[in-house]
Amino acid sequence: MTDPENLVAQVREGDVRLHELEDHADADTAATARRLLIERETDTDLETIGEYTFPAEQAEPNIENMIGAAQIPMGVVGPVDVDGGAANGEYYLPLATTEGALLASVNRGLSVIGSAGGADARVTKNGMTRAPVFRVAGVADAATTVEWVNDNFETLQEAAESTTSHGELIDIEPYVVGDSVYLRFAYDTKDAMGMNMATIATGEACEIVESETPASLVALSGNLCSDKKPAAINAVEGRGRSVTADVLIPGELVEQRLHTTADAIAEANTRKNLTGSAKAGSLGFNAHAANVVAAAFLATGQDEAQVVEAANTITTMDAREREDGTTDLYASVSLASLEVGTVGGGTKLPTQAEALEVLGLRGGGEPAGSNADALAEIIAVGALAGELSLLAALASRHLASAHEDLGR
Amino acid sequence: MTDPENLVAQVREGDVRLHELEDHADADTAATARRLLIERETDTDLETIGEYTFPAEQAEPNIENMIGAAQIPMGVVGPVDVDGGAANGEYYLPLATTEGALLASVNRGLSVIGSAGGADARVTKNGMTRAPVFRVAGVADAATTVEWVNDNFETLQEAAESTTSHGELIDIEPYVVGDSVYLRFAYDTKDAMGMNMATIATGEACEIVESETPASLVALSGNLCSDKKPAAINAVEGRGRSVTADVLIPGELVEQRLHTTADAIAEANTRKNLTGSAKAGSLGFNAHAANVVAAAFLATGQDEAQVVEAANTITTMDAREREDGTTDLYASVSLASLEVGTVGGGTKLPTQAEALEVLGLRGGGEPAGSNADALAEIIAVGALAGELSLLAALASRHLASAHEDLGR
Amino acid sequence: MTDPENLVAQVREGDVRLHELEDHADADTAATARRLLIERETDTDLETIGEYTFPAEQAEPNIENMIGAAQIPMGVVGPVDVDGGAANGEYYLPLATTEGALLASVNRGLSVIGSAGGADARVTKNGMTRAPVFRVAGVADAATTVEWVNDNFETLQEAAESTTSHGELIDIEPYVVGDSVYLRFAYDTKDAMGMNMATIATGEACEIVESETPASLVALSGNLCSDKKPAAINAVEGRGRSVTADVLIPGELVEQRLHTTADAIAEANTRKNLTGSAKAGSLGFNAHAANVVAAAFLATGQDEAQVVEAANTITTMDAREREDGTTDLYASVSLASLEVGTVGGGTKLPTQAEALEVLGLRGGGEPAGSNADALAEIIAVGALAGELSLLAALASRHLASAHEDLGR
Amino acid sequence: MTDPENLVAQVREGDVRLHELEDHADADTAATARRLLIERETDTDLETIGEYTFPAEQAEPNIENMIGAAQIPMGVVGPVDVDGGAANGEYYLPLATTEGALLASVNRGLSVIGSAGGADARVTKNGMTRAPVFRVAGVADAATTVEWVNDNFETLQEAAESTTSHGELIDIEPYVVGDSVYLRFAYDTKDAMGMNMATIATGEACEIVESETPASLVALSGNLCSDKKPAAINAVEGRGRSVTADVLIPGELVEQRLHTTADAIAEANTRKNLTGSAKAGSLGFNAHAANVVAAAFLATGQDEAQVVEAANTITTMDAREREDGTTDLYASVSLASLEVGTVGGGTKLPTQAEALEVLGLRGGGEPAGSNADALAEIIAVGALAGELSLLAALASRHLASAHEDLGR
Repeated sequence: MTDPENLVAQVREGDVRLHELEDHADADTAATARRLLIERETDTDLETIGEYTFPAEQAEPNIENMIGAAQIPMGVVGPVDVDGGAANGEYYLPLATTEGALLASVNRGLSVIGSAGGADARVTKNGMTRAPVFRVAGVADAATTVEWVNDNFETLQEAAESTTSHGELIDIEPYVVGDSVYLRFAYDTKDAMGMNMATIATGEACEIVESETPASLVALSGNLCSDKKPAAINAVEGRGRSVTADVLIPGELVEQRLHTTADAIAEANTRKNLTGSAKAGSLGFNAHAANVVAAAFLATGQDEAQVVEAANTITTMDAREREDGTTDLYASVSLASLEVGTVGGGTKLPTQAEALEVLGLRGGGEPAGSNADALAEIIAVGALAGELSLLAALASRHLASAHEDLGR
Repeated sequence: MTDPENLVAQVREGDVRLHELEDHADADTAATARRLLIERETDTDLETIGEYTFPAEQAEPNIENMIGAAQIPMGVVGPVDVDGGAANGEYYLPLATTEGALLASVNRGLSVIGSAGGADARVTKNGMTRAPVFRVAGVADAATTVEWVNDNFETLQEAAESTTSHGELIDIEPYVVGDSVYLRFAYDTKDAMGMNMATIATGEACEIVESETPASLVALSGNLCSDKKPAAINAVEGRGRSVTADVLIPGELVEQRLHTTADAIAEANTRKNLTGSAKAGSLGFNAHAANVVAAAFLATGQDEAQVVEAANTITTMDAREREDGTTDLYASVSLASLEVGTVGGGTKLPTQAEALEVLGLRGGGEPAGSNADALAEIIAVGALAGELSLLAALASRHLASAHEDLGR
Repeated sequence: MTDPENLVAQVREGDVRLHELEDHADADTAATARRLLIERETDTDLETIGEYTFPAEQAEPNIENMIGAAQIPMGVVGPVDVDGGAANGEYYLPLATTEGALLASVNRGLSVIGSAGGADARVTKNGMTRAPVFRVAGVADAATTVEWVNDNFETLQEAAESTTSHGELIDIEPYVVGDSVYLRFAYDTKDAMGMNMATIATGEACEIVESETPASLVALSGNLCSDKKPAAINAVEGRGRSVTADVLIPGELVEQRLHTTADAIAEANTRKNLTGSAKAGSLGFNAHAANVVAAAFLATGQDEAQVVEAANTITTMDAREREDGTTDLYASVSLASLEVGTVGGGTKLPTQAEALEVLGLRGGGEPAGSNADALAEIIAVGALAGELSLLAALASRHLASAHEDLGR
Repeated sequence: MTDPENLVAQVREGDVRLHELEDHADADTAATARRLLIERETDTDLETIGEYTFPAEQAEPNIENMIGAAQIPMGVVGPVDVDGGAANGEYYLPLATTEGALLASVNRGLSVIGSAGGADARVTKNGMTRAPVFRVAGVADAATTVEWVNDNFETLQEAAESTTSHGELIDIEPYVVGDSVYLRFAYDTKDAMGMNMATIATGEACEIVESETPASLVALSGNLCSDKKPAAINAVEGRGRSVTADVLIPGELVEQRLHTTADAIAEANTRKNLTGSAKAGSLGFNAHAANVVAAAFLATGQDEAQVVEAANTITTMDAREREDGTTDLYASVSLASLEVGTVGGGTKLPTQAEALEVLGLRGGGEPAGSNADALAEIIAVGALAGELSLLAALASRHLASAHEDLGR
């Protein structure tokens, strides 16, 4: 086995480059050598970064130039009580975060949801997208291209699906801007988040588009996908899973457990999440859905940058009057574009795989896609709990101060 | 010392609740007990989650209901060659991610940037915002409130700054929507990301607004802040640091190292990042800035959900003709709302603190704020490298296929 | 015939109300009496408002409480040289506006387009939308409703189309937000702009949705239509006609007629229309398309408030190098949501009908829809001319000042 | 006096061009000749277009290539009962439109507002903007430029204001995107809508920026203005007047006159105008504000294409419970960017000037700016009436059908 110091020396002498260490030693030794080099170069001590506890070679599909691992505190919230299209029952949801009070807040919300009999959740749309951009001579050729694509869906479907054993091409939506043609391919990628699957399949279909139409491919992603950017196309049409969750909380529970009223919560939600976001020119009409999603993504091995799209979430809170005059609280979250998977990507890493096992959702589901659907539903209920807790806090603080005002 | 099994038993008997374990044992024992409970409840083995290597009590400001840690592979890219307003020289940038090929791609971009003499970077705006929403009787009272606030900035500034030793109130911008008044407070929070500082200071100022105007506070955050939501107000006006980075790459380097031309890269950027994002109704006109930001955030202890705002990034790539006819590539990224800190939050956790040390930016800067500025500039250059690399890959692939076409 | 003064007296005595005058006299007399009343009430002289030259009763479908007419100066630009999917040949386009220099600017652009051999234009999408919002108990019922709608398109199509002799239901797209379900119905309304047709047909379909699903109609328009609001759903998916037009202008023409270069125009377009609009959080990536559309709408009897959606336009301008080294200018406009008709609405009013006759597009086309398509294409070319002219002016001014700089 | 037929002959012989006719005859004769030419060219009869009743030369600042006028039916709504910052009392508001039922609907709303004691209205912000774009070498020069501009506001103010007797420069806001610097100049343009004033003044200031900084002007408008485009920057920060209007309608009136309840209206508003627009990715959270604005703009000589920005309007409707248990309706509209003037532009044309006289707002106000403020407030109340009427119609229809349901 190669000695890390040897590698360090080789890099210093210019015989080996920093990113080539894995060619000369096993992954752990390479990481050690690289860490030593960085330590000496920057006069630091990277002891804790080096204290990762998985075999470095297991992370090879996930990272290059590895020096170790970031350790992000992980906790657990729950039980998450869900009656979903795929998820059903009580779950513990692992969350990894550095934001204090987040888990406590979500837990409070979940506890109230549980007392109210649990939340409903549904995936109402599912499609991972990839939208290449083509160059044409002008709008006449653009129209020709769009027409050909519309007339030959099956041909393109066959090509796309030839590259994948699981994925299914659902739709191709064309958009024309001058001499650019964008084709938004949408796939059912089952239990995979599916970006790679979608990219490869779309690449195959693009070759046919290029050979049969005047269009010439410029980029496999033309940003109408739209991956890891805040984009209305995702907020409106969805990407990955479009998932909603809701709960009806009896007025008594609102008062006893959240120390406020349905009316006060509804008002705070309207002024903050609806009107406030409207005035902000926002695509996210929620309080902090991204917090819960980000923490769940880290814990379960999702793509951390796709928190961006997950923030395209609308929260509604309404007071519903019962016949007896009691006012209950109806609360919902609708995440337009939640991209999740239970296979591939970071899901195979040890701590992340264990987190998925806590949910009972590691690997492919039966039927295919049901594990990712369930994960989406459970995260949605987690986000619902977070919204509920934060808005109740705002509303109760306000009620409290209103009481003080009266007392003055 | 309490035995974890004792705690497990107490929870099972209902004497202690899952989130109260820290009241009955030290943090590590509590985490162990909680992990045992979850393992038995869910019939799983959480061994690797339990293999965190920091004292659990160190994470108490960052998480509740801790069971362990997620380990996210961390690598390093660089050197990042920056000539910035705060950063200056060559840096290694730690990145934690599960997305394979990301670091390799950023590294390729950084290498070309280095050969081109490094990148310039500047923080052009700085202000952490918090925007409470107030209720008034109607538009007449709204106008009165706005007028009072505009006339009494110093009073509110004094109140706000009384709560913080570092933070400075820079601006209060009022917005009226019917009977809601939003006041967007902006602070210079120096080396802290500053959300908590801004919230506490704003709370203090709100008391004065409530006592001196007809306005009544509904929520300390009214979503014009706007935290962790995709919002035009951040993309336009900024939040945290507005930071830009650019580089001019000689045409020879573009050809030799990126195997394409400035014109081809500029075309891909225009069709994808500008026109494509325009058609998508996006606030993010870039390829994958969020990828680099997310990985840098995880490595350095930033708030992972604020990747949302970081995605409000515009990438430009232009071909610039020299007098001798050679065409160079001008490339830039402008991140409107990058929220970073080198103190507080997750920056104190061991692996994250070490990552900041690699950058030489752990803790407060001299002058105050310069460490966070420098971190913003370095991340911006990292994002620039990622954009450059990906667009060059698209453009060269296209050139390659164009060559094939000619060969047919 | 009733004397206007009699009517005036009756209103003054409270026997007749201002808006009921048409019940007591012919339309012109009623308008006269109303004008007299307003004149005396406000101590004004409304002589020119009263000098309208059409029979007032002809305007009864268009206005209530009529007092006369606004006279908006109308001019003509052209010839508009179009090679379109529906329009073909040279057209004079009437424009009504109060903005000086607009027609001169458009005319300059059209003249260059004509010298370049004319513009291509295509309608690439067509669908007038109406999106009712329904209330359901929660997300479970929402999912049930969406599923039923997806499974019963033909039933809803039959109901919707039973209300119209021309219109065809093309698509129903469901969107779920908590306990609200939105169904976006899209129709081919042929030569009519089609809002009324779409509303009536959708109303019919809604009754079936209400009887067959748990959904209860709240409003026939739930703003996902989205009519007369700036909305990404229209910019992305289109409403009315999605129409594009483009032209390739030889470099010689750019120099001789526009006194600038393709490169300078492309630069101005990129910095202003693409990057500038990106930074503005805009859905309109153009210079002043709304100017041309508004003027054409007024002249031809379109709905003046739908200028809002027409502004969802992307302009591209690129320099294209010929093999001989000359650089030509490629220019395009893509109007995502242009709502036009040649029958119904204001198209029957005398001056408006004459304007449509100038275009040869008054009334229904052969085949149905071709007149509205042609109108869309001609307006698009007019908008292209306006963009071209303004950007050339900016670029040439800049070039001029650059020359001055050199001369210093 | 020249004979039109002579001119026609000269054009046919190529001696005079169509747009040069005014050089060879008075404006009316030129218009007649042009009309004759178009009639013969297109085989049409433009009799009614030719029946305009103002001297053609009066329209010379407003149009080129004139052939006559479009006659748009004009009616009147009111009284508009306003308690504003500038408007005070009862006004008749002229509206020109071709959309049947619009005036009736607005009138119904105004009648209820009047019975409720009138509406409050306030202009809460005022600033006409123009945002040139400059080219710099890179971000370092961009930062230098921004710093210079921030430090030299007075110098730029002096230059800008040297070009205008009325206008005042209020603010310059810099934005950086890579090697582009945008400076958003905001002016108080008093009673003028002010685009020209702002453009000229900004042009003067730009010369100083160019001479004192590394920045070079590319275009006087860089689209951060943002004129006639749907842009978040206007919706958030305002352009022209930011104006709000509201009314509190007693529950009894809601029932008797609108045949519904405050709760039902509030629900329709939330699901349609707030949640529906949110899901649509909209900047306009209203039902049809653009309708009222467009009609008022046409009647009073405003720029018809600026209806685009006016649509950036948020409508709120809330049920407010009185102590006696009755539920009143609070209704408001907030128009972020309403660009209006009572001098200049189309306001001098005869029918438009008369319409302004009906409002008592023709020409400059005392103090300067108060007429335009008042016009903004009155239009806002008109828009409020339109929103109220339409939402009440939706809510009452729904109530009616709910009653039917019960009867089944």
